Amino acid sequence: MWFPWQCTSVLAPEDKLCLGPMSPASPGDEDDSDCLLLMSMLPADLLTSSLSSLFVQYYINETEIVDFPRFPHRGLLLDTSRHYLPLKAILETLDVMAYNKLNVFHWHIVDDPSFPYESFTFPELSRQGAFNAMSHVYTASDVQTVIEYARLRGIRVIAEFDTPGHTLSWGPGAPGLLTPCYLGKDPSGTYGPINPIFNTTYQFVTSLFQEISSVFPDYFEREGNLAGSLHPSQLLDIVSSLGKGYMVWQEVFDNGVKVRPDTIIHVWKNNPPYAEEMANVTKAGYRALLSAPWYLNRISYGQDWMAAYQVEPLKFNGSIKQKDLVIGGEACMWGEYVDVTNLTPRLWPRAGAVAERLWSNATVRNLQDAYVRLADFRCELLRRGVQAEPLFIGYCDHEFGGF
Amino acid sequence: MWFPWQCTSVLAPEDKLCLGPMSPASPGDEDDSDCLLLMSMLPADLLTSSLSSLFVQYYINETEIVDFPRFPHRGLLLDTSRHYLPLKAILETLDVMAYNKLNVFHWHIVDDPSFPYESFTFPELSRQGAFNAMSHVYTASDVQTVIEYARLRGIRVIAEFDTPGHTLSWGPGAPGLLTPCYLGKDPSGTYGPINPIFNTTYQFVTSLFQEISSVFPDYFEREGNLAGSLHPSQLLDIVSSLGKGYMVWQEVFDNGVKVRPDTIIHVWKNNPPYAEEMANVTKAGYRALLSAPWYLNRISYGQDWMAAYQVEPLKFNGSIKQKDLVIGGEACMWGEYVDVTNLTPRLWPRAGAVAERLWSNATVRNLQDAYVRLADFRCELLRRGVQAEPLFIGYCDHEFGGF
Repeated sequence: MWFPWQCTSVLAPEDKLCLGPMSPASPGDEDDSDCLLLMSMLPADLLTSSLSSLFVQYYINETEIVDFPRFPHRGLLLDTSRHYLPLKAILETLDVMAYNKLNVFHWHIVDDPSFPYESFTFPELSRQGAFNAMSHVYTASDVQTVIEYARLRGIRVIAEFDTPGHTLSWGPGAPGLLTPCYLGKDPSGTYGPINPIFNTTYQFVTSLFQEISSVFPDYFEREGNLAGSLHPSQLLDIVSSLGKGYMVWQEVFDNGVKVRPDTIIHVWKNNPPYAEEMANVTKAGYRALLSAPWYLNRISYGQDWMAAYQVEPLKFNGSIKQKDLVIGGEACMWGEYVDVTNLTPRLWPRAGAVAERLWSNATVRNLQDAYVRLADFRCELLRRGVQAEPLFIGYCDHEFGGF
Repeated sequence: MWFPWQCTSVLAPEDKLCLGPMSPASPGDEDDSDCLLLMSMLPADLLTSSLSSLFVQYYINETEIVDFPRFPHRGLLLDTSRHYLPLKAILETLDVMAYNKLNVFHWHIVDDPSFPYESFTFPELSRQGAFNAMSHVYTASDVQTVIEYARLRGIRVIAEFDTPGHTLSWGPGAPGLLTPCYLGKDPSGTYGPINPIFNTTYQFVTSLFQEISSVFPDYFEREGNLAGSLHPSQLLDIVSSLGKGYMVWQEVFDNGVKVRPDTIIHVWKNNPPYAEEMANVTKAGYRALLSAPWYLNRISYGQDWMAAYQVEPLKFNGSIKQKDLVIGGEACMWGEYVDVTNLTPRLWPRAGAVAERLWSNATVRNLQDAYVRLADFRCELLRRGVQAEPLFIGYCDHEFGGF
């Protein structure tokens, strides 16, 4: 049993060993709070997720620590369409994810408001659909940087290109793709989802997904809750033909769309209560991923990390077999009210509460203990230059900005 | 009628004139959004508050603008006790206050959690009571810097030393000052408010307030809702004897403490509804200052600036004479969950909504118009390097961090 943000307690003081950043400490930095990754052993049966985060054994001065995560999928979603997030902010987030043993970066890269992904097959998509075609885009090099930076920290990158809805930003760079809306007999100038009546639509989507599939080694996620557009099952066929697995938002399941048995259903709604949905999804034999109680963008006054921490993902009516189908969860930071100015303080240390819930044993639930760990971890983040907000009244030895 | 955050609309496009920072624009910077302060005229009858913010006339190319504030007291409260805020953060806040025509900095400098004010009469107060006696204090020089920086921007500094409650941080540096608590016959090791039974208490408080009164040219505020301690009226006598005016939190009025007729009552509670309190305070002939609906530290999800904007300070049952006793209001940013990591994005542009309410005519209420102004102002803040958070989906031409 181990907590992602603190020194393990099974060591004697003289054997102080921290689990922290996977990046090496600064040369000559002998601070206790720096961390030393001694050895990483990876049993084959746990190789379904990122390597370095899954199973680690530490040996030091005759002390043995056995530590492993409760769930293999411990993710964080960032939304780069409602506001653009600069590359630097994404890389810093990957750093802090690694400190928290989060191992999946779910990149909600495009959506209605903007299309910042620079496609080499269809360059007009970002030229016309990004907030700014020069400064508010992710070039091929940026994307490779993110993927490699994440990989070195044991983090998978799952890119999401939401379709057939949430595609308004695709329209300007892909004439004819979207369904025009009408006022009486005349086009109203507004558009709906991807238009299913042209063959060119299928060619376009197939070509784009072929590109995405070559750029992002991991599988990707899509929506599909719109009638009268490209049918979700058609899209899933396209994705499937590319040899990728897929995750879908729960509507696809709710609407009875036929999906492959290995599909992961992402549970995000609270109505019906998410525990019911988890029961239904796993009863149908699908793997479930939980986000509903972890929409961290939905801030409220006070210590709202506590509600996130108290979630128990397996608390639903179901068999042991069903519980085994829960692969983990994701904290989500949607971008309606979040950009580079407030991303970091809103995320950290709050997302650390989700990280501990997904890593530690279900019996680790004491709020007061968790507060101490999380407050300590937050001070450590400040020392590393991360603009993490306070949990409550107090101070840190190393404050942000170094005063 | 003028809005603090945007170009005035009475000018023709070629006469573009913005009301913006009082500090000069960068040399050679010809951007439209830079602002030109042409002339400042100050009628004697409006000289009750800061000078440069009160009444300005602009002449340019035959265009005349007459602009004046609705309320003379347009304040912002920062709390430097629950978390320490470095000098730089305070000065930046003063800059942005000036952009918003806010003219009173209410400095809640000490409270229970820490005593960062470095007193020359009682240096042990901060040595023992600050979070860190070296790094988390305001030296005499810091205080002078704040006062002068504010003065140059037309902002008054009102320092608050809450007494007789909210003084736990005073205890370690002033043995015998606080009332010891008992468990049965033995001291429990905890303390209550300032102890009224020793003469030394009065000498201490008088000496400290003499110092504060010499350091801060403006009057100061205190609490006084505790029975069994130093009586509020005794404290008010001490303050009064120093020749300063005073503001008190509403409990002093609610509890029927006798105060001077020129006392300002600071309305901060929502129970009873603040409109009732405003009516009662002004009916009793006291001046009223409103903060109850403007506790900006109490964040909620979404565009919560709108609720702050829709407040009408004079919407209470009372005569015209009573309404005239409302001197304005203050946005408050209490520090339970706020330090230098999240102060700026939580404050701005949200406090701009309060600033417009306190400056503009009561008829300026349209939310959609206000959104456009506030979003525009927020982009201007980013251009000036202020980490102001987004109101909603979108982007700015100059983003924070300059990408």
